Parts: sequence; C-alpha cells; structure tokens
Amino acid sequence: MKFTRFTAGDNTHSGIIEGETVREITGDIFTSWSYTGNVFSLSDISLLAPLVPNQVIGIGANYVAQKEEVPDELPKIPVFFFKPVSSVIGPEEDILIPEGIDEVKFESELAIVIGREAKNIAEEDVLDYVFGYTVGNDVTAPQFFHEAGHWTIGKSFDTFTPLGPVIETELDPFEVRVEALLNGEEKQNSPTELMIVPIRKMISYLSNVMTLKPGDVILTGSPLGAEMVHQGDVIECSIKEIGTLRNTFKLANKKASIS
Amino acid sequence: MKFTRFTAGDNTHSGIIEGETVREITGDIFTSWSYTGNVFSLSDISLLAPLVPNQVIGIGANYVAQKEEVPDELPKIPVFFFKPVSSVIGPEEDILIPEGIDEVKFESELAIVIGREAKNIAEEDVLDYVFGYTVGNDVTAPQFFHEAGHWTIGKSFDTFTPLGPVIETELDPFEVRVEALLNGEEKQNSPTELMIVPIRKMISYLSNVMTLKPGDVILTGSPLGAEMVHQGDVIECSIKEIGTLRNTFKLANKKASIS
Repeated sequence: MKFTRFTAGDNTHSGIIEGETVREITGDIFTSWSYTGNVFSLSDISLLAPLVPNQVIGIGANYVAQKEEVPDELPKIPVFFFKPVSSVIGPEEDILIPEGIDEVKFESELAIVIGREAKNIAEEDVLDYVFGYTVGNDVTAPQFFHEAGHWTIGKSFDTFTPLGPVIETELDPFEVRVEALLNGEEKQNSPTELMIVPIRKMISYLSNVMTLKPGDVILTGSPLGAEMVHQGDVIECSIKEIGTLRNTFKLANKKASIS
Repeated sequence: MKFTRFTAGDNTHSGIIEGETVREITGDIFTSWSYTGNVFSLSDISLLAPLVPNQVIGIGANYVAQKEEVPDELPKIPVFFFKPVSSVIGPEEDILIPEGIDEVKFESELAIVIGREAKNIAEEDVLDYVFGYTVGNDVTAPQFFHEAGHWTIGKSFDTFTPLGPVIETELDPFEVRVEALLNGEEKQNSPTELMIVPIRKMISYLSNVMTLKPGDVILTGSPLGAEMVHQGDVIECSIKEIGTLRNTFKLANKKASIS
C-alpha cells in the first residue's frame, strides 16, 4: 500500500493511493487506522511528505561502485548523523540554497520508516520493525561542514530533507535501484546491494545503540554520482516501485521575500 | 515556576512544584494549561524528565577556564550535534554504560527549552522564544566517536541524556553557575559567562539554519572538569536556581538482565 499525506484546499489529509485516486484514512498509520469513505482524485490534491518523522537518521558514504568493492568487514563505527525534523519537505516543494552560498549537493536515497519500537534487534528480525519505504533526498551543504568532521549544520537547513512521494509498505528493499535525474539527465542509478553497511546490519546496529521508535526515518545512503547543483536545477530522486520525488533548487534570498 | 513531570503510582502526571507540594496541571505547557486541583506531596512521587523533548541539540567544547579566554571572534561554524530523544531519562534513573566499555564521561550543562517556533531570530530577541531552563547531563562515550570526527554514536546510547529535575521558567541564564559533584566531590563549577558561543548567539545562529520548535532542548555545553566515570559512580549535575539532577552509572550487562 502507498501511504500519503496531502492537502486538498486548505486541509491536510492522510490517505492511500490506488491508481489515480486517494482514499482518505484517519488514525495512526503505525497502530490503528481506517478509511473515512472520502475519495480524492490525484489531480485535485498536492502531496506532502508522507509522514512527519519522529527523527531522521542518516548514514554517510554508504555505497560502492561495484559489487566486488563491498567490503567483507564492516566499518567498526559507521558514520551516522541526525537531520532535524524541521528540514523535511514534500514533493514539488522548493529546496532553498542557504544565504551566502550558491550551490548544494543532492543525494537520492532509499528511506526506511520504522513502524515498531526496536531495541537490540537481531539482523534477521529487522524487517519486522519496518513499516515501509519512501524516497529521500539528503540535501547537503558541505560548505557548512566543520573542519573537524562535524556535518550537523551542513545537513540541517530547512528544506534539506525532501521525502516522498509515498510510503510503500510492500517493497523488497534488496531488489530496488536508487536513481536520480538532474534536469532530466541520469546522475545516480545503483541497486541497494551496493550498500557498504546493508539494511539489516544498519538497523540492527542502530537498535543496539538507541531505541528506535515508530516514525523514525533512516536514510540509507546515496549511490555514487551525487553532485553540486544550483538555483533553477530540478532534481528527481526515484525508486521505481515507490515513485519520484521532484524538487527545484532556489536561492533563499531573504531580500526577495518582500515581493 | 518549576514545571515537572512525575509518576504517582502507575500514572504519569504534569505539575508545578511549590515548596514541598506539586500542583497537577493538564494541557500543553507551551500553549495552554490549567490546574486540575489535585495536589501531591513531593515525598510521594517520582520525578521524570520534565519534558519529552521534540529534539535535543548539543554544542561541543563551549567553555573556557577564565573570562579572559573567551574569544572575541566566534568560531565560523560551531560544533553542533543532535542526541536522540530516546536517550532522555529523568532524575535518579540509572545511566547505562554500553556493553564492551567500562567508562563514560559526564557533562553537566544548562539546557534551554524552546517555547515558540523560532526562525531567523535576532540575538536581542532570543529570550522571547525560550520557555525555560533545566539541567542536562550530556553523557558521552568517546570510545564510539568516529575517527573522522563524527560523534553521533558516542552520544546516542539510551540513558545518555538525563534532564531535570524541573523546567524553571524564571531564571536569568547569564547569572547562574553550572556545577557537578562526582560521588560528592566538586568537579565542575563555572558561570555561564565562560561560554565561547554565548546563549543569544547560539540560538540566533541555530534559528538561521533550522526552524526551532516548542520542546526543542538545547544543551549549551559543559564547563571544564568533566571526566570519565565508572559503574557505581554517582553524578549530581546542578544549577542552584533549578535543582540537582542525580544519576548513578551502571554497566549495561545484558547477561545480568536474566536475574
């Protein structure tokens, strides 16, 4: 099922996409929900990020170019980072390039949505705690990385975490490709088997550190090919089985906001 | 006012401490709340972390030893980091030293609780967005810092963010001292004027990156004197005007949990 959040007129709704229609639902997608009976046409609504995450966790530098390069041994301490929930936007919203710089990096990623509280989970049980999957764009301004290696500010600006278009609950995460088109030109296209820290190990490891909660989103890393982009560029991050997350980059010029 | 959360029997309550009693309240402390009329005696209840934070943001290495050492110029990019909300515990709860290591570091800190959505806030307006202040202990396992400078895992273990005992809404944050007693011996005791990035600049800067939200907690850095501690050690982090946050360190020995 494809879970979504959307606006129709002035109101925000949740729903499930079926073909060209959206059936509205009410309740908590992680515990108990039901259909309201209302149905919307996809053409009459605007999609939002498919959830308001509890937290957003990312992993750095997690893809190799070819299967032969996947290391046998995992890094002792994987590079995880948090992104603020306030950085999340939905499909078609503008990504704002912060004042003072004129380029940022896109990073198309498979995003995992945790559905059940998870602590000390064995690798083989990891998927029992996953609610579903969406596409994420881990937008990054490396100009704001601290020289001693801290990435926080460079990944935390408002609009830096597009998510969407839907949460797909029926997906085999080991059989999908993570793609990105920049202004229509392919820049990323890798199968998830090229992850250095694969999904089961990643979530098992995290759950041995912290208790994961429903609504936690884990960005699983970006394939080779991400690059710096500029005002006016259009990025389409996609995983065929989930959909395409399209956003346009714009300069966050405060002076322009008086118009 | 001293806002608190607490348990009495099996139930969780919110309240305001007045002397030896707690007057229960209901509602959202950031928007609208009222007294229920119920009153508890402090001796009959157990205090919890005074809020469930929306997010926890920390700043690294933010104190000097003496006023003369406070730099005129701020660091270009301050070292900020996130801690997961799942790491928060309250007064008197045990801090668990992760499996595989036998020591961690305590860090007593003034913690700011944001009360209103804050974006692009000028330094002189920062305090208008602060709801109140509590004491935080930014427990850290530097053994889990990544060699390239990423602190995330070393600061993210469950129980690594004690907060409490209360949120004090009437406090002049520029006139308090941040203290820590380890097994009764003073280890930290510095006025907040020894911060390298002072409070107004810290929150103004953050709000220019990300939209801060009610319930965001900002750990403002720890004075000189933090050190590694072991199983059985008792840490009391305190700011006189807020109270004392007391926790005991314990080994998180999974095998012991069968007892």
